[in-house]
Amino acid sequence: MKPSIPQGTRDFGPKEMARRNYIFSTLKNVFQLHGYEQIETPSMENFDTLMGKYGEEGDRLIFKILNSGDFLLKANKEALDESNSQKLTRSICEKALRYDLTVPFARYVVQNQHLLSFPFKRFQIQPVWRADRPQAGRYREFYQCDVDVIGSNSLLNEVELISIMSQGFTALGLPDVTIRINNRKILAGIAAAVGAPDHMMTITIAIDKIDKVGIEGVNKELAERGISSESIEKLQPLLVFKGNTAEKINYLETLFSDVEIGLKGIEETRFALDKAAVFGIENIELDLTLARGLNYYTGAIFEVGHPDFPSSICGGGRYDDLTGIFGLPNLSGVGVSFGADRIYDLLLKKDLFPAEIEAGKTILFANFGEAEAFKSLQLANQLRAAGIASEVYPDAAKMKKQFKYADDKKVRFMCIIGESELQNGLVQVKDFSTGNQEPVAENELSAYLTAKLF
Amino acid sequence: MKPSIPQGTRDFGPKEMARRNYIFSTLKNVFQLHGYEQIETPSMENFDTLMGKYGEEGDRLIFKILNSGDFLLKANKEALDESNSQKLTRSICEKALRYDLTVPFARYVVQNQHLLSFPFKRFQIQPVWRADRPQAGRYREFYQCDVDVIGSNSLLNEVELISIMSQGFTALGLPDVTIRINNRKILAGIAAAVGAPDHMMTITIAIDKIDKVGIEGVNKELAERGISSESIEKLQPLLVFKGNTAEKINYLETLFSDVEIGLKGIEETRFALDKAAVFGIENIELDLTLARGLNYYTGAIFEVGHPDFPSSICGGGRYDDLTGIFGLPNLSGVGVSFGADRIYDLLLKKDLFPAEIEAGKTILFANFGEAEAFKSLQLANQLRAAGIASEVYPDAAKMKKQFKYADDKKVRFMCIIGESELQNGLVQVKDFSTGNQEPVAENELSAYLTAKLF
Repeated sequence: MKPSIPQGTRDFGPKEMARRNYIFSTLKNVFQLHGYEQIETPSMENFDTLMGKYGEEGDRLIFKILNSGDFLLKANKEALDESNSQKLTRSICEKALRYDLTVPFARYVVQNQHLLSFPFKRFQIQPVWRADRPQAGRYREFYQCDVDVIGSNSLLNEVELISIMSQGFTALGLPDVTIRINNRKILAGIAAAVGAPDHMMTITIAIDKIDKVGIEGVNKELAERGISSESIEKLQPLLVFKGNTAEKINYLETLFSDVEIGLKGIEETRFALDKAAVFGIENIELDLTLARGLNYYTGAIFEVGHPDFPSSICGGGRYDDLTGIFGLPNLSGVGVSFGADRIYDLLLKKDLFPAEIEAGKTILFANFGEAEAFKSLQLANQLRAAGIASEVYPDAAKMKKQFKYADDKKVRFMCIIGESELQNGLVQVKDFSTGNQEPVAENELSAYLTAKLF
Repeated sequence: MKPSIPQGTRDFGPKEMARRNYIFSTLKNVFQLHGYEQIETPSMENFDTLMGKYGEEGDRLIFKILNSGDFLLKANKEALDESNSQKLTRSICEKALRYDLTVPFARYVVQNQHLLSFPFKRFQIQPVWRADRPQAGRYREFYQCDVDVIGSNSLLNEVELISIMSQGFTALGLPDVTIRINNRKILAGIAAAVGAPDHMMTITIAIDKIDKVGIEGVNKELAERGISSESIEKLQPLLVFKGNTAEKINYLETLFSDVEIGLKGIEETRFALDKAAVFGIENIELDLTLARGLNYYTGAIFEVGHPDFPSSICGGGRYDDLTGIFGLPNLSGVGVSFGADRIYDLLLKKDLFPAEIEAGKTILFANFGEAEAFKSLQLANQLRAAGIASEVYPDAAKMKKQFKYADDKKVRFMCIIGESELQNGLVQVKDFSTGNQEPVAENELSAYLTAKLF
């Protein structure tokens, strides 16, 4: 049997782990600097907690866990007789794997509502599982990295999240991202202003295609989808409008002169943008085509993109009733999710992982035999006490093999104690970053390496 | 629907996460200081990778993942007709959840053998899942924290792992643990020395019961399990033997005068103990009753206990053929696993979590209205740039509510900017650790708090 892992899953070796930990710890630090606290929820949730929360497609993509023991005892006989897999599932599976972090978070908040102090600001970095068809950049197990505040309507939360996105990507060496912002109330306002208040989604999707299909194409699609010619006519000035964020806002304010919800959206967006500007955040723009998860968001919508990456690397928005599905209505929240895998790919592509996480800091003591190795063990332990990662090659193998190990593991220094060094209380220290080698007195080794390493 | 989580699983709130992260990061630091590198493997493994590796009971306790889509199409018709759940499982489940970290590690090593440099020193901190009956201290999802070196027979690895256990528990504030060590070769030697070489396990288990059932009871059990009266007779001196580790070793050396495997076990154990002594590790003893996972270990066996905790909090040993099950024989390894949940319970019981991880370092700016909050936002951002976690209460709520939030969240300082402070460029800083409050100039706030916090 040739060992393998399930399609769409990955092993992470030492190098990948160092890079992944760098992304997570960088973001975690930014979250904590903004007062967010970490939680973790179980990998498994009850079947009914997850099912029906992500649409029909989502239900299909949730991994279900087979009941333990003689699960057929409780199996739905009718479903068995009909060979109906879907119908059978609920009767043989009581648990399923987390599909995202949002629904478990909502469940957590409702379940622990009397223990929590609101507004509750949490971040959560955990894997999720989806039975998607595996393809480049899409995995069946991947990490999400969510930061949300729940229990506050204040727009200061939107400002804080913009700050988190800006500082997060700057800390990751990606200050050249663009933060795109939109607002469901603006989209609703546009639909209302052109006399098609029930077609918000259709209009938003059509506008999004203008670069691809042109104005004619957009108009054709709108007509096909049942928008009246009068509404399409009213929409034309918006379709040809060109301008920056400030100009867009001014234009929309005129368009919305008597559309209350649109004006509210403008007010919210302007507040967020003005405050962001004061913090020196300039890489933010209003994008009227941004509609991600629109059925779910109720106010601000965010997305972060990078010129060298084809898809978004962060996104989120304001939702007004996330916990309603679990019986706690009217708790407003806002949050964003960082796409760790995509950020990983982008940093790798742009060679932006800091050299220090790639370059080893470990010290390897070569092994020339029992007496020398014993001295090495003692010195290695002294170095560890000084915070220097150290190891002794476990066997008195050929030097070539020991050097290959040092090279593979990217150790920074090799400490060599042969017979004469042992007699003279010396260590030959080879610096792999320069190729130099020099003798150092045993009792000065820790200070010598500390000066070189830190 | 009242939200809940599956039996035997847990949510971890901010406080639990801070404590858990403290344990993991403390151990991770010790592992890295010894030159071990982190890997992660997928939560799901192929069904056949896991099944048959943990015995019949283990197979039963592995969580299986139901195939996606119309899984009944490939279902075993015979098993369905017979209502045979066990037989059906393999045909409707291709994947299962990781049961421990050892088998996935073996699979990883074999799968990546040509990319790895041996000896390969890895640590791995990930959850595992078992369909055990939930009870106090036993969970269906829990973290394991494994550190292993594979591809080296050198006893220096055993010494290194003893160093890791000693330094790990010392770093966690538990220097009063006892590291128990045994060796399968000693146990085999005892069985051989008394003329019952095929009854190593029976003899070891019986010796372990001496404190509970007395010598008579032990002899009775040995006889019942088919040990000859001659062997039982020969075993008597060992059963009444009292002595410390050095005395035990001397005694066994005499007993093993012509039992090669026993002498080998003594030699290995003495090497490890001698080297540990040189490092000042004195809380280590030879325990001849230690037999954990004996069918699996081939040399040293380790276990760590604490006087205030009923079960072991760390354990492991040397295994000579872990990767053989995946087609790569003769690769020797040795490792230990830290029981994070038990360590958590012990630290909590003994109140040993450091005060600094419990006490918040966050700064909360009170919110008195838009202008004041805006100033607060700017100052909060300055503090974040100085590495001080800061947040602004998002609404101009009643002070009582804001103070309750500060108290619940255990913030360290509250910064209060009212109308007069705003006019005079001041901040009232309330230190919750002392109850004192004093005015600080806006432009001195960062330096003032830095001095207090770090």
